[in-house]
Amino acid sequence: KFGLAEEADQIGVVTGLAWTSVGGDLLSIEALRLPGKGRMKTTGKLGDVMKESIDAAASYVRSIAPSIGVKPPRLDKWDIHVHVPEGATPKDGPSAGIAMVTSIVSVLTQIPVKKDIAMTGEVTLRGNVLPIGGLKEKLLAALRGGITTVLIPAENEKDLPEIPDNVKEGLTIIPVSHVSEVLEQALTAKPEGIDWDEEAEEAAAAQAALDNKGQGATAH
Amino acid sequence: KFGLAEEADQIGVVTGLAWTSVGGDLLSIEALRLPGKGRMKTTGKLGDVMKESIDAAASYVRSIAPSIGVKPPRLDKWDIHVHVPEGATPKDGPSAGIAMVTSIVSVLTQIPVKKDIAMTGEVTLRGNVLPIGGLKEKLLAALRGGITTVLIPAENEKDLPEIPDNVKEGLTIIPVSHVSEVLEQALTAKPEGIDWDEEAEEAAAAQAALDNKGQGATAH
Amino acid sequence: KFGLAEEADQIGVVTGLAWTSVGGDLLSIEALRLPGKGRMKTTGKLGDVMKESIDAAASYVRSIAPSIGVKPPRLDKWDIHVHVPEGATPKDGPSAGIAMVTSIVSVLTQIPVKKDIAMTGEVTLRGNVLPIGGLKEKLLAALRGGITTVLIPAENEKDLPEIPDNVKEGLTIIPVSHVSEVLEQALTAKPEGIDWDEEAEEAAAAQAALDNKGQGATAH
Amino acid sequence: KFGLAEEADQIGVVTGLAWTSVGGDLLSIEALRLPGKGRMKTTGKLGDVMKESIDAAASYVRSIAPSIGVKPPRLDKWDIHVHVPEGATPKDGPSAGIAMVTSIVSVLTQIPVKKDIAMTGEVTLRGNVLPIGGLKEKLLAALRGGITTVLIPAENEKDLPEIPDNVKEGLTIIPVSHVSEVLEQALTAKPEGIDWDEEAEEAAAAQAALDNKGQGATAH
Amino acid sequence: KFGLAEEADQIGVVTGLAWTSVGGDLLSIEALRLPGKGRMKTTGKLGDVMKESIDAAASYVRSIAPSIGVKPPRLDKWDIHVHVPEGATPKDGPSAGIAMVTSIVSVLTQIPVKKDIAMTGEVTLRGNVLPIGGLKEKLLAALRGGITTVLIPAENEKDLPEIPDNVKEGLTIIPVSHVSEVLEQALTAKPEGIDWDEEAEEAAAAQAALDNKGQGATAH
Amino acid sequence: KFGLAEEADQIGVVTGLAWTSVGGDLLSIEALRLPGKGRMKTTGKLGDVMKESIDAAASYVRSIAPSIGVKPPRLDKWDIHVHVPEGATPKDGPSAGIAMVTSIVSVLTQIPVKKDIAMTGEVTLRGNVLPIGGLKEKLLAALRGGITTVLIPAENEKDLPEIPDNVKEGLTIIPVSHVSEVLEQALTAKPEGIDWDEEAEEAAAAQAALDNKGQGATAH
Ligand SMILES: [Ca+2]
Ligand SMILES: [Ca+2]
Ligand SMILES: [Ca+2]
Ligand SMILES: [Ca+2]
Ligand SMILES: [Ca+2]
Ligand SMILES: [Ca+2]
Ligand SMILES: [Ca+2]
Ligand SMILES: [Ca+2]
Ligand SMILES: [Ca+2]
Ligand SMILES: [Ca+2]
Ligand SMILES: [Ca+2]
Ligand SMILES: [Ca+2]
Repeated sequence: KFGLAEEADQIGVVTGLAWTSVGGDLLSIEALRLPGKGRMKTTGKLGDVMKESIDAAASYVRSIAPSIGVKPPRLDKWDIHVHVPEGATPKDGPSAGIAMVTSIVSVLTQIPVKKDIAMTGEVTLRGNVLPIGGLKEKLLAALRGGITTVLIPAENEKDLPEIPDNVKEGLTIIPVSHVSEVLEQALTAKPEGIDWDEEAEEAAAAQAALDNKGQGATAH
Repeated sequence: KFGLAEEADQIGVVTGLAWTSVGGDLLSIEALRLPGKGRMKTTGKLGDVMKESIDAAASYVRSIAPSIGVKPPRLDKWDIHVHVPEGATPKDGPSAGIAMVTSIVSVLTQIPVKKDIAMTGEVTLRGNVLPIGGLKEKLLAALRGGITTVLIPAENEKDLPEIPDNVKEGLTIIPVSHVSEVLEQALTAKPEGIDWDEEAEEAAAAQAALDNKGQGATAH
Repeated sequence: KFGLAEEADQIGVVTGLAWTSVGGDLLSIEALRLPGKGRMKTTGKLGDVMKESIDAAASYVRSIAPSIGVKPPRLDKWDIHVHVPEGATPKDGPSAGIAMVTSIVSVLTQIPVKKDIAMTGEVTLRGNVLPIGGLKEKLLAALRGGITTVLIPAENEKDLPEIPDNVKEGLTIIPVSHVSEVLEQALTAKPEGIDWDEEAEEAAAAQAALDNKGQGATAH
Repeated sequence: KFGLAEEADQIGVVTGLAWTSVGGDLLSIEALRLPGKGRMKTTGKLGDVMKESIDAAASYVRSIAPSIGVKPPRLDKWDIHVHVPEGATPKDGPSAGIAMVTSIVSVLTQIPVKKDIAMTGEVTLRGNVLPIGGLKEKLLAALRGGITTVLIPAENEKDLPEIPDNVKEGLTIIPVSHVSEVLEQALTAKPEGIDWDEEAEEAAAAQAALDNKGQGATAH
Repeated sequence: KFGLAEEADQIGVVTGLAWTSVGGDLLSIEALRLPGKGRMKTTGKLGDVMKESIDAAASYVRSIAPSIGVKPPRLDKWDIHVHVPEGATPKDGPSAGIAMVTSIVSVLTQIPVKKDIAMTGEVTLRGNVLPIGGLKEKLLAALRGGITTVLIPAENEKDLPEIPDNVKEGLTIIPVSHVSEVLEQALTAKPEGIDWDEEAEEAAAAQAALDNKGQGATAH
Repeated sequence: KFGLAEEADQIGVVTGLAWTSVGGDLLSIEALRLPGKGRMKTTGKLGDVMKESIDAAASYVRSIAPSIGVKPPRLDKWDIHVHVPEGATPKDGPSAGIAMVTSIVSVLTQIPVKKDIAMTGEVTLRGNVLPIGGLKEKLLAALRGGITTVLIPAENEKDLPEIPDNVKEGLTIIPVSHVSEVLEQALTAKPEGIDWDEEAEEAAAAQAALDNKGQGATAH
């Protein structure tokens, strides 16, 4: 089933698009959220640039945690594992950045990812989407694999004239310039934000610690 | 006795199937559960891809811990050591993934693994089984080694027509697409699940801590 | 939009100037401040010299923390991530030092960086600005990218006669010899300093700890 | 005295057998148990495979700790250092596995190892003994070194017909298939096991902690 | 201003002397003392031997901490960062050892270093000064850079006859055999020692801990 | 003064003997004991085998700590730094083992090492002295350097006939087979042992902790 779209909307499973010397391919990216200590594990024979793109994706997500309904201290109680099968194939490059963000947001919010969507784009620490290479090969692979919608960097729109008409007709191609647009398109529901004021929370935690002590004392 | 099926059903000992330039071979995989701190150790001259397949197997098992009767915090009190004898032979590749899952589940649940079964298949973080190479050589090695049942990835069924008839007659070949099927076939008993609600548990632990403090006080 | 000036004043986003065998280029440097433990993460395929220039920048900023309104112990509650897109392009060298300082000060103080400014210069642990190479190529890239003001090391003033007139007319070029001048030029507001006396603070913290204990006791 | 049998029964000192391109040799393996934190140190220019064989030996011993009279939590209060002199000679391979187990068990139990015995055999995580290479050269080195008894893997019995008669007459050769047989032959006394029930112990420790708190309170 | 003497007496800034294939050069060494945990950071593209010379310098200073007025436990509350600009130039060798000691002592005591002094010499763990190479080139660079006083190892006095007269006339050259002489010459003031008795301090700390507990109780 | 005997008996400074392609040399080994956490630091461009010989020396000393008057838990409150000047010269090999033991024992006991003694010999974890190479060159270097007494491994006595008569007449050569003999010869005083019973100490510490709690309570 590799090289094909997913069969169901799943939490943490995102379809990226790879571009190698032998053409484009679908890249199944999967994340797990586990009880833990805020650690990130990455596997799947990933090169340094792809690992750094996961780091950048993770920091971006940490920076917007309240806006997806996650209190920042909660992140220290989970580990996240990002794996890119097939484990024997080397993968590298920054272009899976927005797929990494989507995968991590999906496991943190437990909101599934739409199964018929694929995406490609580097992500910055502020969630901006940077252009990628191999657009044609990637779109061909998406079409071949049964994908119906592909998110591409807005800065790659200039490459669309070179894409064969049948590909452009077979796919809904959506240019995006920020991952907020990606999440809107790719998740099956919109994450609900919470209020979070770091300093207020710290003060409250300190007060609670003091109250617990007091409570213990009044029981005498 | 290497290259032969195990002589008894054992906890944590699983027979995998290797494929090298000189043919197929049985791969004895053994795991131990030790009092510890949630660490994973791997030995046996394993290559990076095989080590990552153990990481993926371990994360998958952590993610389904309650369904095999293990409370997630319990995992932080054990170390797991996965060893693949013979220690001087280099081993690599992702195809022992489902055997790694089986071995880890067996030591965590203390349910033995059936001695006459062998298995091959890459595993994803969600427990899906991905196809492998060298099916023919692996099946020949299984037959030669006295194995009676072999689990193979469902996506490798397309390779069965090329397998000699005597091999297919001498072995029960079971295609699987998810490790839940692997565990059903390979373990001598079915693990019993428990209920586990992360947030409820955290609240209960916090309450217990508070009660203990109170209890100490009422003893005055 | 890469190779172009930023579109808005942003917190933690600074435009540096790179010099490679194929000419000058704008370098977008971005930092994030995250709830954490005083860790520094760097990504973007950075060479060892650039990573060390971030270390030096970070230590300089730690050493002047009170003067930008940050109590030193506060730094242990945040992580900082410095990323330099585009993630697949190798970057190295010490000349982004003053941009790194600016980016880190911006995220710590939450004061935005002016969008039309670019800068180049190595920084020492005491905030002195050391000269850099490739001034001409860097200024050309700045002009091309829509930058209006460029900060250069005072020791590079001697290279200005070789810069084409149209470049010098199109850009406001400001020589700087200390990062205090850089921050004054690049931030949209001046950080407000606080008083900080390490030993007095330690004594106060120790007293507070003692008082809390007493308070618990008087509740009996 | 190297290349010769030990002069006295010693705690933690075991004679292994090495096989190199220039023939067999005695390998003096020594372990120390030190007050510590459960760490393992290995020295003596050991290759990765030999280091992994020490890891496997250590895990096996941890898994049988109660059966040799050691409560598992006790292991976290000791460090073990395994050293293989002569420090300038590179050593590698898995065949010292059973000697490593014997050395570690000897320091944990403080039971000496018989001085006239030598041994060779890879060990698995379950204590099974796997076959080794160079049996003839190893037995010759043992005879030459004044060893009287040699433990060999049962699966190497098939190689005995090729061993010269004078060697077989000069040595007591004992085939073993599990390290329990090794320990029985090599230690000067049999370790006495203790009862150990992980969960019962944890409950008792928790109760004791609670009682101590209570005791402190009743003293008011 | 590189290659020139410092313009003011500064805390933690010391001028060393480098010797490369293209001649001698001034080496500006700078250290910072930061609130921290006793960590040492080194940057500036330093080779392993120079890093080890910083380690040796730091251990020497730790060993004489009371004699420069620093209680040893205080060292665990500070980090020290030693940086050697220019960050793109590789530096190595042990001959900056006495400059490293001076820089570290200066930041710990907050006593400035005289701006017109340069120094070269390896340092041992006991503060002895060992001879260095390239004396002539180093002295030439010092003269060229406006340095007035140079400290050299006493064991290099034998090389002075080969130094041109104008160099010897333009510089005050002071041979030293122990870093105590270096500190006397290079610091603008003499550090004041304190009494420190490790065991007495430990006992006092233990008593204080006990008293605090008592004090809490008497408040009932 | 390098290549010469020390000028005074010093704590932690031991003269070893090196053997290189260009002949023998004196090797000054120095150790420092610092307030710390039981860490070992080694510097001086040491190869892996020499670093491992320091590890072995340190473990041996830890194992005999009570016999030199040091309670084992005390070792966790000190760091030890072993440095071998001259920092730019690579050093390797196991033959400084007994000098490392002597240096570490000297700093732990604060007993000086005799200045006119040099020594060479590999050490095992049990303090046995193993033979070394280059005896002739080493003895020549010792004589040349003003050393009067040299400790050599007993197993190297067989090499003495090849040593020139004038060397044997100019030096007191003492063969040793265990480091206890080395310490007796090299230290200016005999360390005084203490009684130490690990389990008794642990029990006492636990009781003391309980008493302190009680004492706090009785003050109410
Ligand atoms: Ca594929
Ligand atoms: Ca699929
Ligand atoms: Ca085999
Ligand atoms: Ca078997
Ligand atoms: Ca660019
Ligand atoms: Ca831009
Ligand atoms: Ca030998
Ligand atoms: Ca021996
Ligand atoms: Ca220079
Ligand atoms: Ca200067
Ligand atoms: Ca020398
Ligand atoms: Ca000397």
